[in-house]
Amino acid sequence: MTIVAVIGATTWGNTIGRLLANKGVTVKVWAKTEARAMELSEEQQKLPPDRAFLDYLSFTNNINQALDSVEWVIWAVPAQSLRQSAGLIGNSITANMLLVSLAKGLEASSGKRMSEVLADEITATSLEQICVLSGPNLSQEINRGLPATSVVAAYNTGLSQNARELFQSPNFSIFTSDDIIGVELCGALKNIIALGAGMVDGLSLGDNAKATFITLGWAEITSLGIALGAQPETFYGLAGLGDLIATCAGSLSRNHYVGREVATGRSLAEVRASMSNIAEGIDTTIAAHRLASNLGQEIPIIDLIYRVLFESLPPVEITNRFREGLKPEAIV
Amino acid sequence: MTIVAVIGATTWGNTIGRLLANKGVTVKVWAKTEARAMELSEEQQKLPPDRAFLDYLSFTNNINQALDSVEWVIWAVPAQSLRQSAGLIGNSITANMLLVSLAKGLEASSGKRMSEVLADEITATSLEQICVLSGPNLSQEINRGLPATSVVAAYNTGLSQNARELFQSPNFSIFTSDDIIGVELCGALKNIIALGAGMVDGLSLGDNAKATFITLGWAEITSLGIALGAQPETFYGLAGLGDLIATCAGSLSRNHYVGREVATGRSLAEVRASMSNIAEGIDTTIAAHRLASNLGQEIPIIDLIYRVLFESLPPVEITNRFREGLKPEAIV
Repeated sequence: MTIVAVIGATTWGNTIGRLLANKGVTVKVWAKTEARAMELSEEQQKLPPDRAFLDYLSFTNNINQALDSVEWVIWAVPAQSLRQSAGLIGNSITANMLLVSLAKGLEASSGKRMSEVLADEITATSLEQICVLSGPNLSQEINRGLPATSVVAAYNTGLSQNARELFQSPNFSIFTSDDIIGVELCGALKNIIALGAGMVDGLSLGDNAKATFITLGWAEITSLGIALGAQPETFYGLAGLGDLIATCAGSLSRNHYVGREVATGRSLAEVRASMSNIAEGIDTTIAAHRLASNLGQEIPIIDLIYRVLFESLPPVEITNRFREGLKPEAIV
Repeated sequence: MTIVAVIGATTWGNTIGRLLANKGVTVKVWAKTEARAMELSEEQQKLPPDRAFLDYLSFTNNINQALDSVEWVIWAVPAQSLRQSAGLIGNSITANMLLVSLAKGLEASSGKRMSEVLADEITATSLEQICVLSGPNLSQEINRGLPATSVVAAYNTGLSQNARELFQSPNFSIFTSDDIIGVELCGALKNIIALGAGMVDGLSLGDNAKATFITLGWAEITSLGIALGAQPETFYGLAGLGDLIATCAGSLSRNHYVGREVATGRSLAEVRASMSNIAEGIDTTIAAHRLASNLGQEIPIIDLIYRVLFESLPPVEITNRFREGLKPEAIV
């Protein structure tokens, strides 16, 4: 049977771990500390014994144990920690292992996608051995067994087919794509628009304004994505529009939550400090802002979100833009 | 100053009437019966006297009075009543009047768009004198003064520019389009997807499944729209995706409400009978189903909604499709 390691005992890493273990894949989740690995093991021991995943899911902070005999290494650490984690662990990755990236973000310091960061740091791996999984995947719903879809993308079609077989489950339908750049950019950039949609909700502007904001934001990230090498169709699909809609729906998205709280007057630092999980959109806004600037790409919506987050622009300025008539030349 | 008639004292007709009257346009709303016109006049007299629209908005059931001296005739009757209304009133329309269509539906018996129905019935009018207004425009929010955007489309660019000036308001930003076919199809077809999204919500499938459904539904209505002569870009914009997202958000959409109620076990007839307003998506589903069949266009999602609404397919079949793995070849 298949054996996989999940690097990073994050919410999404643990969710994917359970999903795979539920279908009989042996999953070893690597946590950063022994304390965290033990805590997760103990939590698991308290669950009702009839859960299918229990026999297949374990936790460790020993990287050699985690990687022993695995075919797949699934990276679930947050985007800004990936380089450090990959650097630490990279020497233990061998050329026969296939990598899956789960984080939906861009590295703030470099603007790089997660697959690029992995290829940078892991000498035994090339971009051809890396695939990404991304789609409308609010983890709480997947944990509850509600149906969802997702997309795996790789340069190598054989790899994306294998990854599809790995993840495909009764309630988790996997589509494949050869546009790894597009799928990664969709997953990362939509979090910026979700921050903004959260602000629109925090300002109580209503569903008409929110739909307008999402539509214009989607057009903007699609253009930016194309300028960065994505295929337009990827933004029209489940990894693009689908994930954007799910994330902007709001109730379960961390990025939407941050935007909403900031719009109602809390400082970004305070909101961040109050959260146990990372909202990837925050640092990804920095990365996207710089990438667009380097390309000379117009990004009025991302720029507005950037200024609210990092330059003390009052969130009510978003309302003012709407009231000023949202002229096409100065949209949102 | 500009004088307009609004044909049909519907929720949306009255909302647009107030919006125009608020900017000093003289608006005469034509109601079908004297009783309805009097009821609306009396309701208006009870409002606080500081409302800007009060001096400019009146109600009548006398068509000659309604059309006297008007430049614009704004059609706000429901889609399935438009032919009859236009037939009754058509002889009173003169060649100098410009027409605006508001209804977001297709005629069930013919599959025709609203502008086509108007051109059929009104001899003094050609398609070049007709424009349409459509966008993410939940009327309750517009009545509350929340910001919204919309699109006016006409074959004639001069006409769409004039219509833009007519409707543009501080909280209602108007964009123009030359794709009248696309804008009308977007407004009509999105109501079908909103019915389905309501079913997904009624089945409590979650935001991941709902986002998947909306994304695949959007792709399906975009393909159908293109086959019917629409420009693809129209579906990517505010009249397309924007209106779809606002309508599927749910809380204020009649079509979403119908889908949700049907999914929780009520009969379509019962839900319809309980509503004071018309959910345009129901009859439009019939029209779209026939149009697609005539074109040989695959419409698995619309077909599923059609069968739940009209052929007693149990709504839980939608859940089953998700659980069966949503194979691309048999999507949703």
